[in-house]
Amino acid sequence: MSNPTATKTAITPRREEDFPEWYQQVVRAAELAEPSDVRGCMVIRPWGYGIWENMQRDLDAMFRATGHRNAYFPLFIPLSYFAKEAEHVEGFAKECAVVTHSRLEVGADGKMKPASPLNEPLVVRPTSETIIGASYAKWVQSYRDLPILINQWANVVRWEMRPRLFLRTTEFLWQEGHTVHETEAEAREEAQRMLDVYETFVRDHCAIPVFAGEKSESERFPGAVETLSIEAMAQDRKAIQAGTSHFLGQNFARASGIQFQTRDGKQEFGWTTSWGMTTRMVGTVVMTHGDDDGVILPPRIAPTQIVILPIAPKEESRAQVLEACDKLAAQLRANKYVDLAIDVEIDKRDLGGGAKNWEWIKKGVPLRVELGPRDLENNSVTVSRRDQSVKTKESMSTQEFVARAPELLMSIQQSLYERAKKFRDDNTRKIESKKEFYDFFTPKNSAKPEIHGGFALAHWNGSREVEEQIKNDLKVTIRVIPRGDAEAGKCIFTGEPSARRVVWAKSY
Amino acid sequence: MSNPTATKTAITPRREEDFPEWYQQVVRAAELAEPSDVRGCMVIRPWGYGIWENMQRDLDAMFRATGHRNAYFPLFIPLSYFAKEAEHVEGFAKECAVVTHSRLEVGADGKMKPASPLNEPLVVRPTSETIIGASYAKWVQSYRDLPILINQWANVVRWEMRPRLFLRTTEFLWQEGHTVHETEAEAREEAQRMLDVYETFVRDHCAIPVFAGEKSESERFPGAVETLSIEAMAQDRKAIQAGTSHFLGQNFARASGIQFQTRDGKQEFGWTTSWGMTTRMVGTVVMTHGDDDGVILPPRIAPTQIVILPIAPKEESRAQVLEACDKLAAQLRANKYVDLAIDVEIDKRDLGGGAKNWEWIKKGVPLRVELGPRDLENNSVTVSRRDQSVKTKESMSTQEFVARAPELLMSIQQSLYERAKKFRDDNTRKIESKKEFYDFFTPKNSAKPEIHGGFALAHWNGSREVEEQIKNDLKVTIRVIPRGDAEAGKCIFTGEPSARRVVWAKSY
Repeated sequence: MSNPTATKTAITPRREEDFPEWYQQVVRAAELAEPSDVRGCMVIRPWGYGIWENMQRDLDAMFRATGHRNAYFPLFIPLSYFAKEAEHVEGFAKECAVVTHSRLEVGADGKMKPASPLNEPLVVRPTSETIIGASYAKWVQSYRDLPILINQWANVVRWEMRPRLFLRTTEFLWQEGHTVHETEAEAREEAQRMLDVYETFVRDHCAIPVFAGEKSESERFPGAVETLSIEAMAQDRKAIQAGTSHFLGQNFARASGIQFQTRDGKQEFGWTTSWGMTTRMVGTVVMTHGDDDGVILPPRIAPTQIVILPIAPKEESRAQVLEACDKLAAQLRANKYVDLAIDVEIDKRDLGGGAKNWEWIKKGVPLRVELGPRDLENNSVTVSRRDQSVKTKESMSTQEFVARAPELLMSIQQSLYERAKKFRDDNTRKIESKKEFYDFFTPKNSAKPEIHGGFALAHWNGSREVEEQIKNDLKVTIRVIPRGDAEAGKCIFTGEPSARRVVWAKSY
Repeated sequence: MSNPTATKTAITPRREEDFPEWYQQVVRAAELAEPSDVRGCMVIRPWGYGIWENMQRDLDAMFRATGHRNAYFPLFIPLSYFAKEAEHVEGFAKECAVVTHSRLEVGADGKMKPASPLNEPLVVRPTSETIIGASYAKWVQSYRDLPILINQWANVVRWEMRPRLFLRTTEFLWQEGHTVHETEAEAREEAQRMLDVYETFVRDHCAIPVFAGEKSESERFPGAVETLSIEAMAQDRKAIQAGTSHFLGQNFARASGIQFQTRDGKQEFGWTTSWGMTTRMVGTVVMTHGDDDGVILPPRIAPTQIVILPIAPKEESRAQVLEACDKLAAQLRANKYVDLAIDVEIDKRDLGGGAKNWEWIKKGVPLRVELGPRDLENNSVTVSRRDQSVKTKESMSTQEFVARAPELLMSIQQSLYERAKKFRDDNTRKIESKKEFYDFFTPKNSAKPEIHGGFALAHWNGSREVEEQIKNDLKVTIRVIPRGDAEAGKCIFTGEPSARRVVWAKSY
């Protein structure tokens, strides 16, 4: 990271000084989101919500292309439904918002109070396996009704004691896919397919490399047979779980009664999956790409790809400059680049040019274009890329800029990915001994919580006891057990045989 | 409506036999939605949700074009916030879902029970004026921060004792716009602008004519100074409120503390508006356009505009027919008609051709295209329009169909609007006396709740007492007080002067 004696940055503190506080400040400065007075619930402001809308648009197209359709199921889950799958209810019981009344009335003290208690309390969905399962049980009669391939965009609530904007909030937005299949093999294939969709989306749209694989038993979704996950790396070298896909076996089908007549006339329970990605992804983008001047957005998911900043120090040139800006915006918008939506904004506000420029730097818009009286004379513009130093500016003819804008944006998309990949790779290490492992994950100077650690690729004997020991000692967990080619070896903690290296890290 | 001795229809009962039951059956048969086990909450199935997604897409583009951006605010409202505006809390108190606990634990009887009571109960938002107001109070300091033009797509909850799919459900989906302005005039203009957006959307996208205007005081949104509304007519001649836009004056700004420094340095409360359209619109489309064979969808909002039905009675022609269907679909999809998204589906399921055809009739897909071995030989297709009799089919060359598909779809869009307009106009009557009014709204034979009434355009003296009398006697209310040109006259109930005719009807 950068030199501590560097010039003043737009965000205080800098990342290396206090990463968690830097994150909070960046999210606020870019007007992505802010806490609300409702414990753990955030307000997602237009700039932050615009990023989420683009993520939705792109993910939704990928879900459709893999045969899924959207639907909507109730927000409330009757407590009796929710309790049907024992592991599931146990996993979520500590964080459930519970509706117990359906009316307000004026109390003896003149204040409004809950009235009309419900016969059965309702759980505000923390996830929808059980409420969706109740519908699927009605819809599925025969193998001919399968597969069911449905996704839902929704809000969910998991009571959160230590909230952090986007990363961990009591209410969050997500999509949850819920599918039913005729065979175990098909359901396992679906769970893997959707993990691949997530990996592709995060790589190609969010410019973030991930490790993908299976979770160990202790980190599984409550009620799942197998949980798959993708894990990104923040700039403090901690892991962020960015998307999960679960093979649920017949557990939830049994709990909900999703049963079908097989091809040979028998009754069998369906094989189900579920998979989700959340507004946490917005925080992951900030933590991966942001710098000491604010957010840096990959062009594919930025709410605006290009901002035009009119520079008109004198009143007499103002109209002319604004007209040129309008013309430039129209040319850029007409430039139909097939593979990338280009949205252009002109910031006509009557603020100082410097103040405006810094706002857009903090918001992370990929390209900033200044246009002033001198540019007008030369028929040129001054272009700044957010992935380069804030001082780097390039002057080019308007014509050239219009022609090259798509290419510049794709180049930013690419450079962000490469930078993130290099950072991730530089901080991923094959580790061969317990001592080396403990060293890797221990800060050198405990007074200063300086940056340390990363992803450790190390052999493990598969035992839960080892995992718990490491978690207690270092707050480090197994993030994923990668699939595919494996190199056998010996567990660095016990010396026992290990089929493959697994990925360890501290995490959000 | 149609002849009672007509041939059997796909939906039983027919509209004229029992309109409410016909509606329930159509919604189920088209797989739009179904009740859930959670009182008053519905499951919106993919075909119904697809309609809502298209409505969202089109409305959202109109909101953006008028300068609005989307954001997201908490689902939960602290009770103290909610109670800040007295009329508002009173208006919603009877239908609030209240969260009182944040955890579940195992009770003495071994069953899960709510645990960890909250210090302050949380209301699940029935609408978001108060929670959004709390954010706006922080964001607005000066006239320079205005206007704030934000929309939210969200779920809301209003406890419902007599639910009806789409029209009245405990949980529903909607958009709610919330804006703050510097002056009263600007806020009033905004409220009217968004009503105009709704009117345009409902006319041009949903093919439904409406009456637009102001609500009388008794029908206003709780806390509003003025409520504007658009009112559609169902085929039982009742009104359906299809969208509302409220001028809130400074009421909510005062309650939330949205205050700003004016241009001349004073402190003033902001002028706010809110406006919303809901999933009720899906039900409105069904009630306006549906017939005794099911739903009829306007092409602009149909999830699929064209369904291709392969007819392959013999195994040997099957592969060839399917190949031709794939080719046709590809040609139709490549046909980029600028102003209309065309989605094509091929129904390859191994069911009888008749069964498949009827499924798509009930779902209301605008164009059905049959393609069988004989069509293959002739290089032709057999086309059915959903706005025509199910028996009307036209054979045309494949090439002609590909070229004409957009025009056929636009023709269906147009014919649906004209049919709905004619029905609405035929059942809208200027009424000049109290007797005529009571006759108009009284069934001729009370044993048979036959279709009667419609929209009555009648003069009214502006008094609340008259409104209440009419409501008690006939269940008829003033739907809107139209704006624009007025013809003065005398109240048909009291003989007192009236500035204009108002629109009366029974309503959903």
